[in-house]
Parts: sequence; structure tokens; C-alpha cells
Amino acid sequence: MAGASSYEALEERFAQIGALREAARMLAWDRSVNMPRKGAPARAEQLAALRLVEHEKITDPAVPDLLDGAAEEVAGDPWRAANLREMRRRWLHATALDAGLIAAMESADSECEMVWREARPRADYAAVKPFLQTVLDLIREAGQARGAALGCPVYDALMDVYEPGARTGRIDALFADLAAFLPGFLDRVLEAQSREAPPLPMEGPFAVEVQHALGVRLMRQLGFDFDGGRLDVSLHPFCSGVHDDVRVTTRYDTADFTQSVMAVLHETGHALYNKGLPRGWRRQPAGSARGMAVHESQSLIVEMQACRSAEFIGFLAPLLRETFAGEGPAWSPANLRRHYRRVARSLIRVDADEVTYPAHVILRYRLERRLIGGELSLDDLPDAWADGLDSLLGIRPPDDALGCLQDIHWYSGSWGYFPTYALGALAAAQLFAAALEACPGIPQAISGGDFAPLFGWLAENVHCKASLPASTDELLQEATGAPLGTDAFKAHLDRRYLSER
Amino acid sequence: MAGASSYEALEERFAQIGALREAARMLAWDRSVNMPRKGAPARAEQLAALRLVEHEKITDPAVPDLLDGAAEEVAGDPWRAANLREMRRRWLHATALDAGLIAAMESADSECEMVWREARPRADYAAVKPFLQTVLDLIREAGQARGAALGCPVYDALMDVYEPGARTGRIDALFADLAAFLPGFLDRVLEAQSREAPPLPMEGPFAVEVQHALGVRLMRQLGFDFDGGRLDVSLHPFCSGVHDDVRVTTRYDTADFTQSVMAVLHETGHALYNKGLPRGWRRQPAGSARGMAVHESQSLIVEMQACRSAEFIGFLAPLLRETFAGEGPAWSPANLRRHYRRVARSLIRVDADEVTYPAHVILRYRLERRLIGGELSLDDLPDAWADGLDSLLGIRPPDDALGCLQDIHWYSGSWGYFPTYALGALAAAQLFAAALEACPGIPQAISGGDFAPLFGWLAENVHCKASLPASTDELLQEATGAPLGTDAFKAHLDRRYLSER
Repeated sequence: MAGASSYEALEERFAQIGALREAARMLAWDRSVNMPRKGAPARAEQLAALRLVEHEKITDPAVPDLLDGAAEEVAGDPWRAANLREMRRRWLHATALDAGLIAAMESADSECEMVWREARPRADYAAVKPFLQTVLDLIREAGQARGAALGCPVYDALMDVYEPGARTGRIDALFADLAAFLPGFLDRVLEAQSREAPPLPMEGPFAVEVQHALGVRLMRQLGFDFDGGRLDVSLHPFCSGVHDDVRVTTRYDTADFTQSVMAVLHETGHALYNKGLPRGWRRQPAGSARGMAVHESQSLIVEMQACRSAEFIGFLAPLLRETFAGEGPAWSPANLRRHYRRVARSLIRVDADEVTYPAHVILRYRLERRLIGGELSLDDLPDAWADGLDSLLGIRPPDDALGCLQDIHWYSGSWGYFPTYALGALAAAQLFAAALEACPGIPQAISGGDFAPLFGWLAENVHCKASLPASTDELLQEATGAPLGTDAFKAHLDRRYLSER
Repeated sequence: MAGASSYEALEERFAQIGALREAARMLAWDRSVNMPRKGAPARAEQLAALRLVEHEKITDPAVPDLLDGAAEEVAGDPWRAANLREMRRRWLHATALDAGLIAAMESADSECEMVWREARPRADYAAVKPFLQTVLDLIREAGQARGAALGCPVYDALMDVYEPGARTGRIDALFADLAAFLPGFLDRVLEAQSREAPPLPMEGPFAVEVQHALGVRLMRQLGFDFDGGRLDVSLHPFCSGVHDDVRVTTRYDTADFTQSVMAVLHETGHALYNKGLPRGWRRQPAGSARGMAVHESQSLIVEMQACRSAEFIGFLAPLLRETFAGEGPAWSPANLRRHYRRVARSLIRVDADEVTYPAHVILRYRLERRLIGGELSLDDLPDAWADGLDSLLGIRPPDDALGCLQDIHWYSGSWGYFPTYALGALAAAQLFAAALEACPGIPQAISGGDFAPLFGWLAENVHCKASLPASTDELLQEATGAPLGTDAFKAHLDRRYLSER
């Protein structure tokens, strides 16, 4: 090849886009962690300007010819071929939407989210409904455009943004399986739980600085490098940043440290995935996380599979006792295990235990599909929410703040995202089971606070694969010998909540 | 006009560029305040990607025709005409440099700065010299290209980046005047000072949290709005951010609070200028700060003119005493005034008092002109530095850490910046004198902690003018009745350090 090949020209273009996306990630992190209230409008405009540049670069008229021209150039090279495949996917999504629709969505999403922030504490769904209608109309239009480009139904096209290749046929089957399993299983767990004493409270207050130092201690234990990352505070915990500058956040409650500790461990799972993505492919589409389901699996492997295990709780309990100068039986491993494995029918997704969590996701998945499809109107959403939760968990929210107003996703324009949470839980169980099979010493290591064997297996089978596999199913097939399924998750729940009680 | 006019198309383009520049400012702030060590390379690439996009947008082949086409459209509208003038100036600077030179400079600057960070503490000029040579060669090349575009000498073109319109002819005259005045004046001040008792020490330690709370208290006193800004910590104090999200930083020394207090006041002067720029012109070139000299004048009006005045020190002393629970005569206004007006022949620019400060600037101005012009080689820089300082202040640095290695500017590629510090001091004195003449109640208000009269005058005569005047001289002419001169500064020094002693 003389001069830069088509493929090389694309790599250069995507490297520049990747650097701009990193800039946007950092600005979004700052918005959640540092930005004063009045900075919001300017920040929204900065992020919109970055997205517009990205859209311009990816929809440049030169790109289709480069994509076609590169096809032969990458033959026989799996990484380059995967990169070209992911470039084409991003190009399809980007060219599906014109700049006018993107701008309209940004403006509608941002306005609706602001109204929602005021409406939620007042449980005032009526106040936000007209704004949500605009968001829904625009996201449907975007879904139609994406679906036309991808050749798939509208809702599938929306999911594809977060979870490439996700299709309702597969997810319906997985979720139907879970929805059939969970109610009966939940009854049995609650029955078993009721025969035991409830966990003893650990008495606070727990100073924020002490909790922060504990979070740092635990992150280091897992292998997080503070020369290449930070732990900060935000309203909701999250993980962002880039390879060598990973930003983890949590929040602190001086009356209860248990949630903050698990939030830190959860986000550290995300962080170590980000950090473990192959350095040589950073900023390239193939070097990105496979999708949000795999990303969530990496946080849930840490939080749910590893850190609520008897082995880790045996490691954690004395550390907590020492950190907070705790005394008495409330600080025993047995009591801490009861804390971290408490199951309850509850109204709020983000506070739910791992047994009931999938029900919250299935509810939202079913509702948002019907909303997108026009089979459910926003007028009927609160009742449909209550009925759906009732049928899945047997409870009804007393108001919309505890019902359809609780999550930011729909109000900020994230439609098709919810399923990835439950897919991530399934993938976490399946990957963890495969890791244990390959490395039976993992639990023993974890009981001593040593995560190296677990992360060694994950690095090899998940992190360094990035988007080389074409889908979550393909990644799981390679890593575990089977596509995504429910068996490992159900076996995990059964073991933890029934047989090993 | 049918459709968007040329001028409107330019405004839209510059608004987008402005938003991207804001993004870059925030990322640079984060780099100094939050970023972990290993994040540096990725951050440099993110900033380089943003600069490249800005360069692409401003050097777009459509721009020259738009600039020409807009000329008639803005006739009779002073703001639009000023905006077009500033757009053309930015376009001239941008088109002067090709993307290859920009990339080479970024890479050389960044490498040299890293070497300098290691070399400075070891006073090892030889280690950094070859890297500095590369930086110098490239900046000279850039200066030649800018000079050809602007039709001015190389060094003038480099200054023009920071201080539009700055020309060596004017600055030589101003600095010659100062250089003639200062040595004799300094002798007299030191003689007068030697006849007084030195200031009594205020005994620490002074907790960082208490110093931070004091900084916040003082910023509020000056009118800083913490819903639209922050105060954080960085290695060197600075002010960045945007209109409604102004980021001020300082540093804390638990043994001495006096420098941190003045740094906060200084940066708040910058902050209130940023905040006071006309909202309707934000992101447009005409709505930007007039230049670095005017920017520095706004910080020095606060720090030097207002906050080292007897009136403000009378307000500050009891506040400090209360904040730090100080006791005894060390906490009296008279003693604090002696602290804040101490004059000394010293080696380090950033620690210098306002009497000797201009000498440090004049030294650097003279040296960097000769380096750019090729009349001085980097081999001879350490000796030239020592000789120059000797002739201006009568002292010689014992090593290069206290000499030509002390400032980051040259090593990070900022050439032609230094003069703006001294021009800012001149402008501060001249503007403050004009403000006092217009509003004689300013000192009395300041003695009660009321800065509204001062900032009212500055808002009207400086802040809201932004870059409507074509130059610092034009702004000063309008605000004070004369272009920039040395009279007000010399009168100020004479009053504060001799006649009002």
C-alpha cells in the first residue's frame, strides 16, 4: 500500500474522536463531582459542542469510501477486522441521526431532566409528563432512524446503542425464564430468612473521612492504582475517566457505611475493566468495552459474586471492626453476612438486593418497550408501573416518587439501557462460575484479600478482549463455553440464599 | 440580508470554538487540581485534539471569504465591528501556523516541561538545555510565521498572542522608565524600612481547613458567588473556568497564612473580571478579556491596590485575629501592614514584593528578546541572568534553581508572556487612581469590607468593555484619559513606601 491506507486513515480519525470522547467523559465527571449549580448551562453547551464535532467527524462524506476501502485491508487480522466492524457500527448509528434531531433531543432531554429533578421529590408526575412526552416522541423518532439503518425494530435499535447486538427475542426469553423463577424463589428465601434473627445494627456515626480512607484501602486491596485514578463524592456512585486516570465516586451516609463500601467495590469493578482494556487499542472502537452488559458484569462480579461471598466477608468484618472501632457481635462476619444478604420486596431499584433486582429491570424493560411501541401511553404509566410491580414482586408504590419517577433514565433520554443491568447480573454469575472452574483457588485467595487470581482470569478472558468478540454472547461463549444464560445466576442465588444458609 | 449573513456564520463558528475552548480550560483546571500523575499523557492528547479541532475550524477555507463578506455587514455597529476585528486577528494567528508546527511545538513543550520539573529541584540547567533549545527553535519559527502574517517583528508577534497590539517600541520605553526609577527608589525604601522594627511573627500552625474557610469568607466579601464558582488547591494559585463556573485555586502553608490569603484575593480579581465580561458576547472574540495585561491589572487592583491599602488591612487584621484566635501585637493592623509591605532584594519572582517585581519582569523580557533574536545563546543564559539581576537588583543567584530555572514559562513554550505582568501592575495603578478620582468613597467603603463601589467602577470601565477597545492602550485611554504609563505606578509606590510610611 502506498501512503496511508483507508484503514489507517480511519484509525487516525477514530483516535481523534476517541480523545474528544475522553474530554467529554472528564467534563461529565466534573459536572457530577465539582461543578457549581450555575455552571450547568455552559457545561451542557460544552458537551453539545463536543458531540457535534464527533458527529461531524464520523459522518464526514469521506468515511463510507474509507470503510469500503478498508474491508480488504483488514482481512486476516482479527483485531483490525473487529475494529473496522465496530467503526461501521458507530458510523451506522451516527449517520442515522441528523444534527437537527440530535440537537432537539439534547435540548428536550436536558429540559425534562431539570423538571424531573424538581418533580420527583414532590411525587408530581403530572408536572413532568408533557416534557417526558417530548423526550419519548424524539427517542422514538431516533429509534426509527437507527432501526432503519441497522435493519432491526425500533426498540432493538435503541438497545443497540448501549448493548450492541441486543435483540428483544433473546432478552424476552432470558427475562421470561427469570420472571418464572423469581417469585417462587423469593417466597422460599423470605421464608427461610424469617426463621433467622435479623442482623444486629452497627452503631454509628461513621465519619466521612474514615469511610473515605476505608474506600481507598479497599480499592488498593483490589488493585486500584491511585497514581492512575481517584475516589470522590457524587450524588450517585459511578465510574468514569480513562485508562490511566480512572475516576470512581461514591457517597457517604454517616449513619450507615455498608452501602458506601459496596458502592466503592462495585465501581472498582468497572474501574478495573476500564483500566484492563488493551492499551494498544485505546481510543479505537475495538478497544472499547464490549457493551454495558459486560461492563455491569465486571462491577457485579466484584460486588455481588466476590465481595458478598463468605470468604470476603470473613476478610472484611475484622477490617470494619478495626476501622470503626466496633465492638460486640454486630461486627462479626456472621452478622455482616446477614446485612449484606438481606432480601426484601422493595420499591426502589437502586436499593434492591440481588434476588429482587431483576424484577425491577424486567418491569422497566416491559414498560419502555410498550411506551416506545405506542401500546402504552404516558397517561397510563403510573398504573401500569404499579400493576407490573405488583405482579412481579407483590407490592405497589404509594406514590410516583417511589414508582415511575424514581429513575433518571427515561427523563434524561436513556431508553433501552435498563436491560443491561439484569444482563450484567447474568453475565457476572456465568463468568464467575467459569473463573472458579478454571482457578479453584479464587475463593481461598479472596478470603485473604487477594484478588489477583480473579482479576488475572478476568483480564485474560474479558478485559483484554475488549470488543474483539462481536457481541456479549460471543464473548461469553469464548470465556465460559456458552452464550449468556440464566443457569449460573439461578444456581448462584440458590446456593447463597437457600442451600448455604 | 437573506439567510445567514457572513457575520452570523462567523459568530456561529466562533461560538462553537468558544465552547471547545471552555472545555479545554476545564480540562486544564482539572489537570492542575485533580488529575493523578499517570493521567498526564492522555490529558495532553485530549487537549491536543481539542486544539486541533479549533485550528481546523478557524483555518477552514470558508473563513477568509466570510471575514471579507462580513466587513460591510458590521459597519456602524461597534460591537460587531470589534468582534470581526478580533476574529480576523485570531484567524491571522491561526493560519500563520500549520498543524505540523503546532504538533511539533506541543510535543517539544510537553517534553521540555517534564524534564524541567526534574531539573529545577536539582538546579541542573545542563539537563534541560537541549530540550529548551528545541523549544526555542520552534517558538522562533512560530514567531517568524506569526510576524509574517501580522507584519511585525518576531518577538512582537509572540507577545501579540497574549497581549494584542503589544510592540517592543512601547514596552522598551515603559520599562526603561521603570528601570531608571526603581534602583534609586528601592534604595530609599530599604533605607526607610531599616529604620523601623521588622514585623512580629504570627505564630502558627494554621490549619488548612481554617485557611480555606477564610479564603471562602474573603471571596464572598469581594462578591464571589459560590453557586457559580469554586476555591480549590493547586501547586500554584490560578484562576480559570467560565462565566458561571469560575475556578480559583490557592495553596496552603500551615506555617504562614499570609501568602495564601493574598493569592486568594489576587485570583478573585481575575475571577471577577471573567465573571463581569459581557454575557451577551460570551464565547465571541470581542467578549473575551482584552489581554493578559488587563487581566493581570484586575488581580493586582485587588491584591496590591485595594487589599494592601491601610483601609483593607484595618478590616482584615481583626478578621485574621478572630479566625486564627491570635493574640498580642503581632495581630495588629500596623504589624500586618508591615508584613504585607515588606520590601527586599530577592531572587524569586513569584515571591517578590511590588517594588522589586518589575525588575524581575524586565530581566526576563530583555533576556527572552535576545534569545529569540539569536543575540544570546542558551549556553550563556545563566551568566546573562546573573549579570542582569545584578544590574537591576544588585544580587546574584547562587544556583540556576534560584535563577533561570525558576519559572515554567520558557520551558513550557510561553515566550512573550512575561511583560504582561509588569504592564498589568502599571495598568492596575492607573485604573485604581482613575477609580478613586471618580469615586472618592472607595477607600472608606473598603475599610468596611465593601468592594461594591470599586467593582462598580471596574465593571463599567473594564469588565463590560471586554475587547471592544482594540488594545490595552485604547481601553486605558477611555477609562483613565491616557494610554498606559508609569506615572500612576510610581506615584503609588512613592506614596505607599515613602510618603505614607
